[in-house]
Amino acid sequence: MSQFDLKEYISRQKAVVDAALDRLMPEAKGPSAKVTEAMRYSLSAGGKRVRPILMMAGCKAVGGVPEEILPAACAMECVHTYSLIHDDLPAMDDDDLRRGKPTCHVVYGEAVAILAGDGLLTYAFELMTHRELTDKVPPHTLLRAISIFSHAAGVAGMVGGQTADILNEGKEVDPETLAFIHSCKTGALIRASVEMGALLGGGDEGQIAALREYGTALGLCFQVVDDLLDVVGDQEKLGKPVGSDEKNKKATYPALFGIEETRRRAAELRDQALAHLSSFGQEAEPLRAIANYIVERDR
Amino acid sequence: MSQFDLKEYISRQKAVVDAALDRLMPEAKGPSAKVTEAMRYSLSAGGKRVRPILMMAGCKAVGGVPEEILPAACAMECVHTYSLIHDDLPAMDDDDLRRGKPTCHVVYGEAVAILAGDGLLTYAFELMTHRELTDKVPPHTLLRAISIFSHAAGVAGMVGGQTADILNEGKEVDPETLAFIHSCKTGALIRASVEMGALLGGGDEGQIAALREYGTALGLCFQVVDDLLDVVGDQEKLGKPVGSDEKNKKATYPALFGIEETRRRAAELRDQALAHLSSFGQEAEPLRAIANYIVERDR
Repeated sequence: MSQFDLKEYISRQKAVVDAALDRLMPEAKGPSAKVTEAMRYSLSAGGKRVRPILMMAGCKAVGGVPEEILPAACAMECVHTYSLIHDDLPAMDDDDLRRGKPTCHVVYGEAVAILAGDGLLTYAFELMTHRELTDKVPPHTLLRAISIFSHAAGVAGMVGGQTADILNEGKEVDPETLAFIHSCKTGALIRASVEMGALLGGGDEGQIAALREYGTALGLCFQVVDDLLDVVGDQEKLGKPVGSDEKNKKATYPALFGIEETRRRAAELRDQALAHLSSFGQEAEPLRAIANYIVERDR
Repeated sequence: MSQFDLKEYISRQKAVVDAALDRLMPEAKGPSAKVTEAMRYSLSAGGKRVRPILMMAGCKAVGGVPEEILPAACAMECVHTYSLIHDDLPAMDDDDLRRGKPTCHVVYGEAVAILAGDGLLTYAFELMTHRELTDKVPPHTLLRAISIFSHAAGVAGMVGGQTADILNEGKEVDPETLAFIHSCKTGALIRASVEMGALLGGGDEGQIAALREYGTALGLCFQVVDDLLDVVGDQEKLGKPVGSDEKNKKATYPALFGIEETRRRAAELRDQALAHLSSFGQEAEPLRAIANYIVERDR
């Protein structure tokens, strides 16, 4: 039994990320203050900081210093947050609540919400060139990280997955399409988070590849459990309505394979993720604990 | 009188950019093909390629090889095009036509249009790490270009300008707010185009600063003339309805200062732009011709 205290670890890392976001995000000022305000509103609306914490844990696993890659960790949270703002828009999922709070367009209006998403996505790449990073990370490594990041966030990754998800709403999807949606929509950024952490932390090619594979399995596991919680979860704990996937006729793993098979698949993906960490030592303990936690989580 | 044939130059450069875009943009395939199709649709909907041509002309002016920075030139066009797609959305300017063609959301629906914009913006940064660039440009120079680019496209630039523009619709704006909107909304990307061209082309700090100043004056000039054409232009030549700024109660230079003062200001900005080119030789002839053309254009 591991002595590692994940709850304490996550709470500590989350505080580090929250402080870095507050420090690194632009201040609201001048004639465009509203958009910066909206960006900060959505960034501080209760996000669990899963992706930045994964990036920092990936960095740690290869012996890097997580505090040195904070601008990249914040950039990842910016991209995740922009995707939520745009997903929640009336033309997309049309959600008024996110983590129990009014969504960006409900508070700031649709136009500013679209621009806040655009602003966050753009600022993510500005953060990737922040002095704190360029001072610590070799420039060719930083360029490779930007390449992984943009590929994962774009049409070959998250944007592509969200497109497929939206276009298949209300349709019967085959397992291949569901796998595409899972792998791209949520999987791509989670995979990239761990991979970028390993890369920016100075990992060798073998370590980067292993953590990339870990991230792939973890990302799929995360999505499978997310779908499951939408069916069997507790609305209060989740902070969002359950059953919304069914309501929106979203393609999900439980809808296609049933609840028991979904649970079995989640455990299998966790085991795959853990197997990719076998050559890592104590420094990878946070990544192991996160894989175990994701399967057991209820929110 | 200059012997430089701008029309021929622009037509040749435009063909180079168009071919590069076709070659460098992702193919439409798989469950997310629609979003890539929408990206290509908007990219090929008659854009004049002003910004990529300016970037290549900036590169040339410092003695660089414009063909070597094509991925960056295409990245700039991706960001410009994404901004048009999002600006045209019903929640923003609600335009059905752009350059005489149906806008992206009219053809593909709002959800895919939002995602196509997101995809273009993200792909721009993927292009900035394209092998064709990393093979030719030193990594620290490329990182500096990404920094300039993201800053110009984000809340401190284009997104901020668009926010201020939208929030001030139907309101009396003071000259300072109008200057902010002009400088950010259109000016920031035009300035960045020329500056990035000078940087990526290997210019020294003095050349980069001079071309940045040229770009600042040119960007303002471009916006002032754009506002003017909306009042006095010919709908058929422009390919869009004239008077739309007045209809939408947009803040414009002619509305604030009148038509004659606007013409005088445009000529003054052109002269400023040309002055910043005084230390450059024959290689800057395209930039000189562009500055002259912008004031004389009728579309």
